[in-house]
Amino acid sequence: MSELRVVFLGTSSGKPTLARNVPAVALFIDGTLVLFDCGEGTQNQFVRARLRPGRVALVCLTHFHGDHVNGLPGFLSTLALNQHDKPVVALGPSGMCDYFSSLRRLQIFVPRYPLKVKEIETPGLCFEHDLFTLEAGQLDHRIETWGFRFEERSRPGRFDLEEAKRLGVPSGPLYGELQKGRPVRLENGTVVEPGAVLGEARPGRSVAYITDTRPCEGAVHLAQNVDLLIHEGTYGPEMEQEAHKRGHCTVVDAATLAKKAGVGRLVITHISSKYRDIRPLLKAARQIFPDTIIARDLDEVNIPLSE
Amino acid sequence: MSELRVVFLGTSSGKPTLARNVPAVALFIDGTLVLFDCGEGTQNQFVRARLRPGRVALVCLTHFHGDHVNGLPGFLSTLALNQHDKPVVALGPSGMCDYFSSLRRLQIFVPRYPLKVKEIETPGLCFEHDLFTLEAGQLDHRIETWGFRFEERSRPGRFDLEEAKRLGVPSGPLYGELQKGRPVRLENGTVVEPGAVLGEARPGRSVAYITDTRPCEGAVHLAQNVDLLIHEGTYGPEMEQEAHKRGHCTVVDAATLAKKAGVGRLVITHISSKYRDIRPLLKAARQIFPDTIIARDLDEVNIPLSE
Repeated sequence: MSELRVVFLGTSSGKPTLARNVPAVALFIDGTLVLFDCGEGTQNQFVRARLRPGRVALVCLTHFHGDHVNGLPGFLSTLALNQHDKPVVALGPSGMCDYFSSLRRLQIFVPRYPLKVKEIETPGLCFEHDLFTLEAGQLDHRIETWGFRFEERSRPGRFDLEEAKRLGVPSGPLYGELQKGRPVRLENGTVVEPGAVLGEARPGRSVAYITDTRPCEGAVHLAQNVDLLIHEGTYGPEMEQEAHKRGHCTVVDAATLAKKAGVGRLVITHISSKYRDIRPLLKAARQIFPDTIIARDLDEVNIPLSE
Repeated sequence: MSELRVVFLGTSSGKPTLARNVPAVALFIDGTLVLFDCGEGTQNQFVRARLRPGRVALVCLTHFHGDHVNGLPGFLSTLALNQHDKPVVALGPSGMCDYFSSLRRLQIFVPRYPLKVKEIETPGLCFEHDLFTLEAGQLDHRIETWGFRFEERSRPGRFDLEEAKRLGVPSGPLYGELQKGRPVRLENGTVVEPGAVLGEARPGRSVAYITDTRPCEGAVHLAQNVDLLIHEGTYGPEMEQEAHKRGHCTVVDAATLAKKAGVGRLVITHISSKYRDIRPLLKAARQIFPDTIIARDLDEVNIPLSE
C-alpha cells in the first residue's frame, strides 16, 4: 500500500503527432487516480496503456486551451457508459461551470454518477482526500492557468516494538490503535500515548504539475522540494524569447526551476511537435539539472517511499 | 480528375477500442474534403492515415452525442495551428451556434480562418459546392439527428468528336467551350449549340451517410439509388429490439435498407464495442445484401466513374 506512480498519457503541445498525444498525466496513489489535464484522445491512451479510468477521483484542468481539455467530455462520458457510479470531482479555472452546463445543454455529456464541478478561485488548498491534499498556484500563460502541487498525507512514524513491549502493551489490536495515533488503556489502567511508541511522522511524497507557463513565482512556490516535478519544456533554449512571448518555457527554464526549488527529479513534457530529435533538449536540461528525463507517451515514473 | 473516395476514420459506437476509434468519415472529391462527424481523436486518425485535414471545405455533424462531436474543436484548432486560411463550413443540428459560441467564449477554439457555422433547419438541400450538393434528411434517434446525401454534380455528356469535325468546328479552344456547355460561333458565322456535339449529361456519383437511427423513412429517402450507402449497424440481429429501443439499427436493418433503396454498395460502420468477431454480423448482412462490407478503421472505399 505505497503506490505512487505517474503515467504520461500525452506529451505533445498544441497538436498530436504520430508519437505524442496532447497533454494528460495520470497519477495513481494506492489505486486512486488523479488526472491532470485531459487532451483529446486521453481515453484512447487509457485503452492503449491498459489503465482503468474508473479509478478516477479527481480531474484537474490547468487552463482552457483545447489541447488540455478536449478529451474531458469523452473521458467522462465513457465512464458513464462503463456504469461508473463513484463520485468524481472536476476542478479547473473559472469557466468550468459554464463549460459543463454547455455540455449538458447540448447533451454532449450527461453524467450518470455524482460529478462535482469546482472552479479554483484563489491559490492554495483546492482539494482534500483521505490520501492526499492538492494545492493550486497561479501560473503565467496567455489565459488563466493553474499549476498543482500534490502532497501525500504524512505517514505515521515508525512503530517502536521494543518500547511497546517494555511499556507492557500486549501484541494485537492495541498496536494497531497506537499506530493510528490513538492512546490505549492497558488492563492495569495505565494509558500509553502514541507518541511514546511512534517516531516522528514521515512526510508524504509530493508531485508538482506545472504547464503552461512562462517562468514565474507561482511555479517556484509549487515546486519547492517536491519529489517529482512535472514541468513543461515546450521549446529548446534557442527559442527562449519566443517561448516566453507565447507564455511557455524552454527545457532550460524547467531545469533551472528544478535546481532552484530543490526537487528530487524532473520530468519535462509538453514538447513542441517541431522537435523530432529530443536529445539536444535533454542535454541542455541535464547540464543544469542532471536528474531530468523528457517524457514519451505512456512513460511511467514511480515515486518510491523515501525510507 | 475523378477522385471520389471515402476513408473510414472511426468505426466504433459510443467509445473507442484498441481497434476502432469513435465515428468520423472523410470523403474526398477531387482534392476537396467533406468530413462526416468528428469523434474524439479524429485529428489523430488523420495523422495515422497521412491524410491532409487542410483540404476540408465542409464538416457535417449528424447529432450532438459526444462520440460524434468531441473531436471537432481539436480538428478545427489544429487547422489554425497549421496556418489554414481557407473557408470552412460547419453544418449540423440546432445547437451548433450555441456550441461554437461556448468554445469561443472559453477560448477552447479561436478560429483564425473564415468559419461559417450553420444549423440545419429543414430536410432538403443544405449545402452547395462547385463539385457537389448535399441534402439533409431527418433520422430517428434519441435526439435531433440528421443523415446526409452527397451528390456529385452531373458531368457533361460525351463529346462527339466526329460530329464536331463534320460541323466544321476547328480543334482547339472551341471544343472546350462546347464541352462546358456553351454555344460557339464559327468563322463562317454558323452557331453550333453544345447539344449538337454532346451526349446526355451523365449523373454524378452519390453517397449517403446514415447514423445514428432506427429504421425510418428519412433514411429510405436519403439512400435511394446511391452508389455507396454508409449506414450504421451497431448491433447484430439478435439485438433487434434493444437496438431499436436505443435508437439504433442492426446490421440486418442496414442491409434491408440497402436492398430496398437499390444502392450500389453498402458499408456498415458504428459497430458496438461488444463485437470482437464481426464475421457473424457480416454473414447476416450479406444474406440480405451481398455487396456489403463492415468497415475497419482507415479502410478506404473508392467510387469509380460508372462509365
